[in-house]
Amino acid sequence: MEPATIFPVVKAVHELDYLFKPRSIAIIGASQKELSIGNVIVKNLLHYGYTGSIYPINPKMDEIRGVKAYATIFDVPDEIDLAHVIVPSKFVPGVIEDCGKKGIRAVIINSAGFSEMGEEGIALQNEFLANAKKYGIRIFGPNCQGIINTDPEYKAYCDFTFTFPKPGNISIVALSGGVGAFIMQSLFDLDIGMRMYASNGNACDVSISDVIKYYGADDETKAIILYTEGLSNPNEFMEVAKEVTKKKPILAMKSGRTEEGAKAAASHTGSLAGVDISTELIFEKTGIVSFNNEEELCQVAMAFATQPFPRGNRVGIITNTGGPAVIATDELVSAGLVLPALSEKAKNILQETMLPEASIGNPIDVVATGGGKHFRSAMDVLMDEEGIDSIYINFVTAPFTDTDEVARNIVAVSQLRKKPIVCNFMTNMSLDRFKETARILKEGGVPCYSFPTTAAKALGALYRYSKTRSRAIGEAQDFNDVDKKKAEVIIKQAKREGKQFLSADRVYELLAAYGVPVANWWLANDVHEAINAAEGIGYPVVIKGESESLIHKSDMGGVAINLKNADEVRSAIEKMKASISVPNLRFLVQKFLAGGKELISGVSIKPGLGHLVMFGLGGIYVEVLKDVVFKIAPVTELEAREMLASIKATKLLDGVRGEKGINKESVIDIIQRVSKLVTDFPQIVEMDLNPIIAINDMVYVVDARIKID
Amino acid sequence: MEPATIFPVVKAVHELDYLFKPRSIAIIGASQKELSIGNVIVKNLLHYGYTGSIYPINPKMDEIRGVKAYATIFDVPDEIDLAHVIVPSKFVPGVIEDCGKKGIRAVIINSAGFSEMGEEGIALQNEFLANAKKYGIRIFGPNCQGIINTDPEYKAYCDFTFTFPKPGNISIVALSGGVGAFIMQSLFDLDIGMRMYASNGNACDVSISDVIKYYGADDETKAIILYTEGLSNPNEFMEVAKEVTKKKPILAMKSGRTEEGAKAAASHTGSLAGVDISTELIFEKTGIVSFNNEEELCQVAMAFATQPFPRGNRVGIITNTGGPAVIATDELVSAGLVLPALSEKAKNILQETMLPEASIGNPIDVVATGGGKHFRSAMDVLMDEEGIDSIYINFVTAPFTDTDEVARNIVAVSQLRKKPIVCNFMTNMSLDRFKETARILKEGGVPCYSFPTTAAKALGALYRYSKTRSRAIGEAQDFNDVDKKKAEVIIKQAKREGKQFLSADRVYELLAAYGVPVANWWLANDVHEAINAAEGIGYPVVIKGESESLIHKSDMGGVAINLKNADEVRSAIEKMKASISVPNLRFLVQKFLAGGKELISGVSIKPGLGHLVMFGLGGIYVEVLKDVVFKIAPVTELEAREMLASIKATKLLDGVRGEKGINKESVIDIIQRVSKLVTDFPQIVEMDLNPIIAINDMVYVVDARIKID
Repeated sequence: MEPATIFPVVKAVHELDYLFKPRSIAIIGASQKELSIGNVIVKNLLHYGYTGSIYPINPKMDEIRGVKAYATIFDVPDEIDLAHVIVPSKFVPGVIEDCGKKGIRAVIINSAGFSEMGEEGIALQNEFLANAKKYGIRIFGPNCQGIINTDPEYKAYCDFTFTFPKPGNISIVALSGGVGAFIMQSLFDLDIGMRMYASNGNACDVSISDVIKYYGADDETKAIILYTEGLSNPNEFMEVAKEVTKKKPILAMKSGRTEEGAKAAASHTGSLAGVDISTELIFEKTGIVSFNNEEELCQVAMAFATQPFPRGNRVGIITNTGGPAVIATDELVSAGLVLPALSEKAKNILQETMLPEASIGNPIDVVATGGGKHFRSAMDVLMDEEGIDSIYINFVTAPFTDTDEVARNIVAVSQLRKKPIVCNFMTNMSLDRFKETARILKEGGVPCYSFPTTAAKALGALYRYSKTRSRAIGEAQDFNDVDKKKAEVIIKQAKREGKQFLSADRVYELLAAYGVPVANWWLANDVHEAINAAEGIGYPVVIKGESESLIHKSDMGGVAINLKNADEVRSAIEKMKASISVPNLRFLVQKFLAGGKELISGVSIKPGLGHLVMFGLGGIYVEVLKDVVFKIAPVTELEAREMLASIKATKLLDGVRGEKGINKESVIDIIQRVSKLVTDFPQIVEMDLNPIIAINDMVYVVDARIKID
Repeated sequence: MEPATIFPVVKAVHELDYLFKPRSIAIIGASQKELSIGNVIVKNLLHYGYTGSIYPINPKMDEIRGVKAYATIFDVPDEIDLAHVIVPSKFVPGVIEDCGKKGIRAVIINSAGFSEMGEEGIALQNEFLANAKKYGIRIFGPNCQGIINTDPEYKAYCDFTFTFPKPGNISIVALSGGVGAFIMQSLFDLDIGMRMYASNGNACDVSISDVIKYYGADDETKAIILYTEGLSNPNEFMEVAKEVTKKKPILAMKSGRTEEGAKAAASHTGSLAGVDISTELIFEKTGIVSFNNEEELCQVAMAFATQPFPRGNRVGIITNTGGPAVIATDELVSAGLVLPALSEKAKNILQETMLPEASIGNPIDVVATGGGKHFRSAMDVLMDEEGIDSIYINFVTAPFTDTDEVARNIVAVSQLRKKPIVCNFMTNMSLDRFKETARILKEGGVPCYSFPTTAAKALGALYRYSKTRSRAIGEAQDFNDVDKKKAEVIIKQAKREGKQFLSADRVYELLAAYGVPVANWWLANDVHEAINAAEGIGYPVVIKGESESLIHKSDMGGVAINLKNADEVRSAIEKMKASISVPNLRFLVQKFLAGGKELISGVSIKPGLGHLVMFGLGGIYVEVLKDVVFKIAPVTELEAREMLASIKATKLLDGVRGEKGINKESVIDIIQRVSKLVTDFPQIVEMDLNPIIAINDMVYVVDARIKID
């Protein structure tokens, strides 16, 4: 084949267009050897019908698979948009330099032998990256599969995989080529089209975030599938994902969620995988629909490819068989959907149109003998029903029914795209008559599943996306009343003094500067001062021994609670002095708050991401039940509210057994102020507010620890 | 076709052999009308190649689908083992009478119009049942699909469904024909053979338990799939299931697990469905492997059809691609499996046999270029490895590999049946070369999945069964020290007095008779008696007002705690007398146990099943966190032990924050004694021991309520 010389009309407008919409491709390291990557890529481009020009580069060959080969890229008479590089790693920096000279704008490096191989590989990678930067080349890979664009205008199969998808509107990006390939294969098996595909291996330049941003801007991509084992630049990712999910759904799976899984992940890629919750939190914060079962993700994608999103959680079921409706109901309800009763108007219509043995309710059972017109009427009724947002259909192909007619009616209603429809289509596909029924449904864009639970999960996922899209997470509050100057002084001072942990008085001052309420306190140097402080604060008080070198106060007898008068204060301090021999022992005097609820909050830092803010119930709840929740800072008011609502023992906050509930608004305020503090001062690497006591409508921090870096 | 006159050699030995292994079948109500049930059944028997004689019965026809028809069963010249009845319900009692006279031993009533239709239908059902009993006929149905036996000796397709399974070793029993049919279809689609099938509709005679017992005794059935929406005779079911699961696995799904699902179930069947936990508890007690996703159940069945069961939870992974191993690891670990490190011996062998770029560990990554001999060596090593019980394989068909050779090696090792193997086989089946690879694996009996999570779930399920089979649940203890006589007197007396709730003194006496420790108590008639009792018991005490009409004591000021001396006792009693105006107010004096842990236990009754025994942590744990667990009585020691271990806050029982743990053995003893008490006295319909206080190594019931019927 001679290279085509007529380029597609559309000029590249986005930097990554050179990668995803190349008008010409050089394969540097093309080979005549069957099954070698340098051969398979040429074969795939040809087989898939790439519309641009193919330039195999090989100094020893005249042609590869019938396509004229060139000794070097400089011999190619045309411009080259994209180059595949399949040469040993040590030659790659030089090749990239050449690519720059030739004016190539995008390079897919399929070769391995870089950052995944340790020091030497990293050095090579840095070397070619520098060359790429010099010439403004975007690098995809190295150690990667490549990209695929099914757009009939390009048909760019720049990959050595072996699945040839039909065009569609789902785009895939996967860290692992192995997983990416089987997701692509699975969409293919499910007869779902694909738009674009990208698996970027070491991802030294073009990142998953870049690809998602590109897919986000691509009008033909209706939904994005993401597989990852960790995120190397979480902030960049969040920035991008937040914007993209406003426009279209991202369905994502992150593996390595168990300790062992993370170990397996770390051993096969250089990514930042680890057993942490931050990826899940990022998905939540940015509105990504997350999965931990890749089969479910692929199945669900079928519904995302064709269906509109439901406005709410109210589903109507149409069925022509009993049991599967029971199974579907279980799963739909588990996914947060509800089955409202039908309106009188709807029931009256159905009374007229259904068979006498039909069951008129939700589910509507049109019974096995119900035909196209019965399904149609049930669908019409649900489409018109104010109180229904989506439709679930069980369709078993009873032998005595004109199943094609049923299918045509489902398609007709589905194509109105008024409300989402999913169909559990139970049939025997080895029978020709039902194959035809399946074809009608499929070509009509009805997402068909073989199991009621699977179909119900798909509808559940559509609902999850619509819910996440309408969740007004808002912006973090700005809090004009915080004293940032004072906080800065405290932190700088501690830093200057070389302290890792702030002293108790500084901790309380810092919290107070940010409007976080702390129990009244005084740091006393001696007994007299302590008694004075206690009188001022009001008995009973608690006294804590305070010194640079005291970390676990209660373990060392450094805490005395419920001191009711001067004598008790004196005796407590004397005991402390006797038992604790540290220099400069001082005494923190605080109001003793008996009763009340113990809460905790805290902050930890995740490299590359920022702070995670934690909230939970204190004491045994955190110790035994691990009843805490996390959000990524900055935490908005809505998120703080969600934190209170999402701990397991949330009911305790409202009061049980006749107790009064706590002042939740105060807690919501504290969480946001803590978030503001650590967002303003990234130097804070750890913070524990433990306990926070909620008592009589008041909420105070009673003990706290702050670590800076 | 002329009816065959040569019967199979094997004579029926089991009553249900007439149903599942009929040598001749009459279709009463056979019809020439295409798609009618009376026609489809004849068609299916012919199509599937039924080896016995077919006798269509229709007074107006000479033949049905080429088979000679008879006017009545009495005109049939042969014996008839099984009859299908497809006549209007009102004629059924008469038909059954005729069947009896003809000597037919099993009847499948496909007709509807019986118990599912209310009063009139129930009457009809009772009528034909009486006739059946008279003649010793077993009735299958009515309102049902029927049975299928794929055994080549019978090929009995006595059903109007449209899936024609190949012979295999999985047998299915389903309450819902719709669900049964799609499970059968799903096994067919997965190319898993099936042994027998039964969907018994109203199940007026042959029950799910009967069928499971039959499958249990059938040597060719290796695993049983059960779908139900509830159990009409739970005790019979438990009896059967307990025995069968010792021999072979039962994989079960019960739908109607949400309130809405149960409503949907109730509307389409006359079963005992309800939102309850008892079916799950029955599954647990009898060793059934339960699922709540029918797609997963069917997928998993593939592994049960061919693989041995693992001896333990230690899995070795072999992979030729990274990402899918990460995903698999996550799921395997979630399922309770572990990935042990390999022995030095194993690693030494692999060092020799693997490619240099392979990763030697667990997972063993043979890398994409690894071929048959690399897979083989990895498998051999894991098969020989002491510390490995099962093998998980990721096999992606890399284009540069002889995938058939890999497949042949997997098959060779798998056929040793030494340890179970599951395979995640990632390929493109539209390519002929990989179709052949798939064929080799499939015909070799290797369970192949398209997703790593799905394959991992299958291995997880094999492990669940092996774990459940080796769980020595034991028998409930007999407790020779209980005073059954005394308990009987107390209960009879209360019954005679027409009481629903036992009085406090009787409650404590009853518990004491069964060795359940209760806090020291005295029921006093007046202040003096109360003070005497308090002195005897020892201060501090708690006093509770006691009268027939007092149920919620604390709400009415009927409880005074922590009374430290006679004065406090006097004043408390005077207050009670003043505030509570009920006749015969008496005063229960008990030791006041401050501190300690509040536990609760209780009992409720489930009609048809017996008692459920509950255990949990008291107070807010039960109120807010619902941290309780249930078991079906009689509870064995192992089960009682599991109850303590399976509450969420189980760590609290061991003591946290330096506290001492509670005396668990005492609690385990109490649970078993409670179980023994209600098992001995089914008249007890409700019991609450709330709280039970565990303090200083002692455990006492402090308050209790017992309701009898």
